[in-house]
Amino acid sequence: MIEFNPLEWEIINSAPFQRLRRIKQLAWTDYVYPGASHTRFEHSLGVCHTATRLFEGIATKDADLLRTEHGFDEAGLKRQKQIIRLAALTHDLGHGPLSHAAEESFPVNEETGKRFVHEQYSAAAVKYKLADIIENHPINKNNYGIKFSDISSMFEGSADVGKSIVWKDIIAGQMDADRMDYLLRDSYHTGVTYGRYDLDRVVNTVCLCDDEDGFGHVIGVEDDGIHAVEGLLIARYMMFTQVYFHKTRVIYDHHYAEAASHVLEKHGGTFPSPNEGEIEEYLKWDDWRMLSEIASESSNASCSAICSRDHHRLIFNTPEVPGLEDLEKFDEVKAKLDDLDIVIRDAKKSWYKFQREEIRLREPFGRGVRSVPLATRSPVVNGLQTVNQRRIYVAQNERAEALHRLGAA
Amino acid sequence: MIEFNPLEWEIINSAPFQRLRRIKQLAWTDYVYPGASHTRFEHSLGVCHTATRLFEGIATKDADLLRTEHGFDEAGLKRQKQIIRLAALTHDLGHGPLSHAAEESFPVNEETGKRFVHEQYSAAAVKYKLADIIENHPINKNNYGIKFSDISSMFEGSADVGKSIVWKDIIAGQMDADRMDYLLRDSYHTGVTYGRYDLDRVVNTVCLCDDEDGFGHVIGVEDDGIHAVEGLLIARYMMFTQVYFHKTRVIYDHHYAEAASHVLEKHGGTFPSPNEGEIEEYLKWDDWRMLSEIASESSNASCSAICSRDHHRLIFNTPEVPGLEDLEKFDEVKAKLDDLDIVIRDAKKSWYKFQREEIRLREPFGRGVRSVPLATRSPVVNGLQTVNQRRIYVAQNERAEALHRLGAA
Amino acid sequence: MIEFNPLEWEIINSAPFQRLRRIKQLAWTDYVYPGASHTRFEHSLGVCHTATRLFEGIATKDADLLRTEHGFDEAGLKRQKQIIRLAALTHDLGHGPLSHAAEESFPVNEETGKRFVHEQYSAAAVKYKLADIIENHPINKNNYGIKFSDISSMFEGSADVGKSIVWKDIIAGQMDADRMDYLLRDSYHTGVTYGRYDLDRVVNTVCLCDDEDGFGHVIGVEDDGIHAVEGLLIARYMMFTQVYFHKTRVIYDHHYAEAASHVLEKHGGTFPSPNEGEIEEYLKWDDWRMLSEIASESSNASCSAICSRDHHRLIFNTPEVPGLEDLEKFDEVKAKLDDLDIVIRDAKKSWYKFQREEIRLREPFGRGVRSVPLATRSPVVNGLQTVNQRRIYVAQNERAEALHRLGAA
Amino acid sequence: MIEFNPLEWEIINSAPFQRLRRIKQLAWTDYVYPGASHTRFEHSLGVCHTATRLFEGIATKDADLLRTEHGFDEAGLKRQKQIIRLAALTHDLGHGPLSHAAEESFPVNEETGKRFVHEQYSAAAVKYKLADIIENHPINKNNYGIKFSDISSMFEGSADVGKSIVWKDIIAGQMDADRMDYLLRDSYHTGVTYGRYDLDRVVNTVCLCDDEDGFGHVIGVEDDGIHAVEGLLIARYMMFTQVYFHKTRVIYDHHYAEAASHVLEKHGGTFPSPNEGEIEEYLKWDDWRMLSEIASESSNASCSAICSRDHHRLIFNTPEVPGLEDLEKFDEVKAKLDDLDIVIRDAKKSWYKFQREEIRLREPFGRGVRSVPLATRSPVVNGLQTVNQRRIYVAQNERAEALHRLGAA
Repeated sequence: MIEFNPLEWEIINSAPFQRLRRIKQLAWTDYVYPGASHTRFEHSLGVCHTATRLFEGIATKDADLLRTEHGFDEAGLKRQKQIIRLAALTHDLGHGPLSHAAEESFPVNEETGKRFVHEQYSAAAVKYKLADIIENHPINKNNYGIKFSDISSMFEGSADVGKSIVWKDIIAGQMDADRMDYLLRDSYHTGVTYGRYDLDRVVNTVCLCDDEDGFGHVIGVEDDGIHAVEGLLIARYMMFTQVYFHKTRVIYDHHYAEAASHVLEKHGGTFPSPNEGEIEEYLKWDDWRMLSEIASESSNASCSAICSRDHHRLIFNTPEVPGLEDLEKFDEVKAKLDDLDIVIRDAKKSWYKFQREEIRLREPFGRGVRSVPLATRSPVVNGLQTVNQRRIYVAQNERAEALHRLGAA
Repeated sequence: MIEFNPLEWEIINSAPFQRLRRIKQLAWTDYVYPGASHTRFEHSLGVCHTATRLFEGIATKDADLLRTEHGFDEAGLKRQKQIIRLAALTHDLGHGPLSHAAEESFPVNEETGKRFVHEQYSAAAVKYKLADIIENHPINKNNYGIKFSDISSMFEGSADVGKSIVWKDIIAGQMDADRMDYLLRDSYHTGVTYGRYDLDRVVNTVCLCDDEDGFGHVIGVEDDGIHAVEGLLIARYMMFTQVYFHKTRVIYDHHYAEAASHVLEKHGGTFPSPNEGEIEEYLKWDDWRMLSEIASESSNASCSAICSRDHHRLIFNTPEVPGLEDLEKFDEVKAKLDDLDIVIRDAKKSWYKFQREEIRLREPFGRGVRSVPLATRSPVVNGLQTVNQRRIYVAQNERAEALHRLGAA
Repeated sequence: MIEFNPLEWEIINSAPFQRLRRIKQLAWTDYVYPGASHTRFEHSLGVCHTATRLFEGIATKDADLLRTEHGFDEAGLKRQKQIIRLAALTHDLGHGPLSHAAEESFPVNEETGKRFVHEQYSAAAVKYKLADIIENHPINKNNYGIKFSDISSMFEGSADVGKSIVWKDIIAGQMDADRMDYLLRDSYHTGVTYGRYDLDRVVNTVCLCDDEDGFGHVIGVEDDGIHAVEGLLIARYMMFTQVYFHKTRVIYDHHYAEAASHVLEKHGGTFPSPNEGEIEEYLKWDDWRMLSEIASESSNASCSAICSRDHHRLIFNTPEVPGLEDLEKFDEVKAKLDDLDIVIRDAKKSWYKFQREEIRLREPFGRGVRSVPLATRSPVVNGLQTVNQRRIYVAQNERAEALHRLGAA
Repeated sequence: MIEFNPLEWEIINSAPFQRLRRIKQLAWTDYVYPGASHTRFEHSLGVCHTATRLFEGIATKDADLLRTEHGFDEAGLKRQKQIIRLAALTHDLGHGPLSHAAEESFPVNEETGKRFVHEQYSAAAVKYKLADIIENHPINKNNYGIKFSDISSMFEGSADVGKSIVWKDIIAGQMDADRMDYLLRDSYHTGVTYGRYDLDRVVNTVCLCDDEDGFGHVIGVEDDGIHAVEGLLIARYMMFTQVYFHKTRVIYDHHYAEAASHVLEKHGGTFPSPNEGEIEEYLKWDDWRMLSEIASESSNASCSAICSRDHHRLIFNTPEVPGLEDLEKFDEVKAKLDDLDIVIRDAKKSWYKFQREEIRLREPFGRGVRSVPLATRSPVVNGLQTVNQRRIYVAQNERAEALHRLGAA
């Protein structure tokens, strides 16, 4: 049972949070797995729950270390837990219509020259829409004194968060609560069993590990949690190859990006920016509004493709881990079809970050403990290569022609 | 694994069927159980699957009876199966935005003086939008000669369907495929376990039973399926009391009916009628459109209550099976609050229809079999009384006053 | 995750407790449901866990009541919890080979003129084999001062335990931890889904209720737990009719009672008594020993029937809730077969004890609460009649003759 | 639902098959996971079911290939299916008490100079105890003419079975029905979730693949089953590391081998041989008999260790995938403890056989198909290294001394 305090209930009942009921977690995945109509609303509640479990696992097991090396007393830990819970609840507030697919229409940040990312919108929602609730609620004011930026810095990649803040790994890292929740949740609602892993075991073995340099700490697992973590990584690999990179889902992301771009032409060309003046306007965009607008633009090819389910068809793909000859074959096929209405999509994903960012394992060593990178102990993790599948889709009405050309080969 | 033939795929890919992706199965239930965002799209596929299993259970077990008494040969059974599958797929096409809650804004049928019901819209969708696909598809034309009315008469209460057509029970009856699917599906997506029952066992024991008069047949179960059917009825009882009649869900149905009525004022006061001229217009209404319109009517009290989750609060209710004193108490409370902004909702439901409509059981008798009403064999079914809970809700801003009045009692 | 303290681990590692690994929970049920080979060992661990959850549910929710009316301070509750856990662990220690089926060969208690029951053997095992461990373990000695009789009186029906000891209901009552564990566990290992119910909800709503007279307390549930308790009762009804009273299981209980009686002829005619001199000898009996002895007695008809799976066959039964004519028919059939080698078995069970022993419900009443019997609020419970099925089995080699006689009827 | 024909029921009801009820599937695993008391009886039924599903998957999908290249017509396939089902049912008949742990006490085959293996006992049980039932049952005699050796050659490594007999892979191979059943079953009864994988998907994608040389066929999967097979291999890896090689289970296997050897001294030193004269005697050994005998030998150290759960304790182990320094450390520790009562156990297992025996994948290639080794397409499989964990256990009463010596290091 998940419980929330009055401050958290105010966040949950706020308009920016209720908006998440109208953002489907998996965008077009229900075109393939019909049950996948769950939203970022329940996901965000779930991340809060899982983040709390991870926090409590560490706080219980490594209370001494936290006190002696990080200066956390009981009150400090309570405050930290509240920060983590609020960060978990709010980390997805900034997602656009259909989640990640919207990001291609985010405006460019003039300071960096790169597009904004959804975490920056989440941070803006916290700053401009929720800071007042958070900072002035008696629970916080009387006990913790948490500032809005304590929360948003947990998921925003701000430079001033030193590595000493181990807690950030709970919200964004290779074994964060976000991932732990969505793998299980997406597995449940799609009905595919690939996303299951032993969450209870992860929670029971999560701990502080020495970081690579041996001066600080990162979040890792005890050595008897190794197979639970392997299970988590395998679940991720399986869900990507089976669900998130499903051939039909992927092409709808493409059609959607084009359609959203077309719709936004009437609204300035991109979504509003994550600043004080525009965040309110941005948050008015949700799945329902965007899809209604797309539905009314039937003369646009991309909008029409979506509404009549007339998507481009897969005509060729390499294996997930292609060899050289597969890539050559791909280029050859592409050359033959290049003048047709084709779309190329790469399903590129590295499953695991080695070296500095790797998950660490705490194991007994002599009379004490030491920490080692997971890959040195796990035959499975060692084998996780980057998936790098390349695909060519062709418009329905040119499919026969494309097949003809390839058949003639 | 569910498989569909090319005719069925055409139905599934048609606009009226794809529209079901935008009608949530359980309306406001995700306000209480966040995972309940599944739609009538996947439900309709599921009903088709379950109806097929029921049909095949009977056709295998009672092949002799079907041949000798009902004149079904193998080809006839194949045709019948296709009718049942198409009826199962299309039976929910006519649902309005948020399903049942829409029915209060359906227009009145001038012929009968009563409001239309959603089955009549389903029938109209079949007749005016799908008849061409169905009647002219080679699979049907070359083999079965099914007319659109063969399908719609399975779920529409048309007078000319004699009781000889036992198959209708599979689509609409006390143990129909609709109910069997939604109980399991709603249980899964809400996460409450109350809707589980042993579907495999029902499918393995479903059979033809003599009807009450002994001249015709109805669909029932063999005696060793009695506990599976009890399980089905208990599941229904549990889901109604725990989910479908949940106090918060129920008050949102009320606010929605008011809000929808307000929205429809701009469109003629009611939804379009299920006739040739208006069915196209009707089908343009879905959850997304209605909820967008409600969202833009923030000056209306009901629309506003929905958008800001500011629903009326439950201030008093009787037990589910109230005694006389409970009903008197209810009247007393109601009298005290009558001038406030209150809403009364009755959660009235009889769980089981006794006598003529009762589920029948086929049991060994001497060297043959006989059929008896389920209630004569099941202690559980016998006890299923009508739930008749009465509730009073009061507007948020008058809740303190209402409590004061009741406390003063 | 279930955790045990060092005292509990000593109990678990003791010979009387390890013996439970060799007592199958469901006797012959694996002849019908092959997976049902689980033992009283894991069940006893599970009861300890569930009893703890029930205790903590009450102790948290009704801490005030326990302090003001029952005089329990924090230390008192800790002691009580330890008593309950030890009682839960040890309550099944006295079961004989194949559990309940052994009881027909228990000796007669000369004081009462009735056969001993397995709870008296459990009490004897605690008194003569575990008292030393319990009473002298530092955890107990330094903190609680629990005597062995504090434990055994929880499950033994001793007269001096007044109704003030509400806790006894957790170990033996209409909603005790024993039942809650075995329904779920048996459901899991048989693979039938009928035994499922919402244990979490029961744990969250269990509470102290006024007893019938209004002077004392009994353990019951809050009104919003009503459907969870209904679920528990339904689960029990379903498991009895589907598993525990399965026709094949029941006849093996009969053959076993005869076979055990035959085996025991060599050992004095009955099992040893639950007294200091004989309890050691009694505990040497387990499934393995008894079944080995039966296997070596192939000249005895009952032993042979078991070893070669040549059990009597069901030739006639009434419905589970028979009418008068069914009972008359039964007598008629019985008369026709009376000179054959037949066995009569009644599957009689009342599902629910009404009136004084009934489960009570705590509901809001005015500004306070009151408690009412469950049956006044639950349509389902009200309908739970006694199952009273009568069955006639006949020896394999006389089955043809029996069928002939009945066919001639 | 699993169904059996009358011939199969005769096999199931025979004494050698019923004996499997008394051989636990996982030997001592219930000392670690208490629910793991399931037996080879239900496993054998399950293998029959899964083997049938695999067979039907191939027979349906590759009917053409089977007809044109292997000469199977419909009747031939029916006969083959019966052979496979009988082989699946009987393949474990020869297991000794506590399954694999018994094999250390099997006699030496004079012809080969090596110990017999359990498959040879299974073959002997089929030949000497079941051949008559099989060969003379009307179902077989009138339709198939199956000889007992057609069955036993499916699981016995007889030389005359050429690789042309692709079906053998269903009973014994890298993706056989045995493994597919036990992974799911052991996962269920231990309660650990690691053994789950998508069996339905494997069944839907299993097919005939060209073997390595391109002249014959082996059983493999279509390319869209790749992740299901990966899941199967991962499940195997997980179950071995978490369950089958569990540190406590492993040491009990050692104690048992010693204890069984001691018990057998009275019976000639080894189990009887798998020949006509001794197979009857061999089959009298089951878990119950062996454990009773062990229980009565309390003066033997190994027997006593088992009965009083006084097993040797793990004092040191390397990681599962040890590095060179780990192995050196192991040798160092071993040298320090060598004069104590220690036991060394290696948990060595290669997860996957590469090259000639590798699972093959059938993928589209141009207008046709080709087959490739799984490892060329799967990043996960490629990483599956041999687990090679080394462990040192020490007797309870020398544990303190051992710790002292290591601490002094």
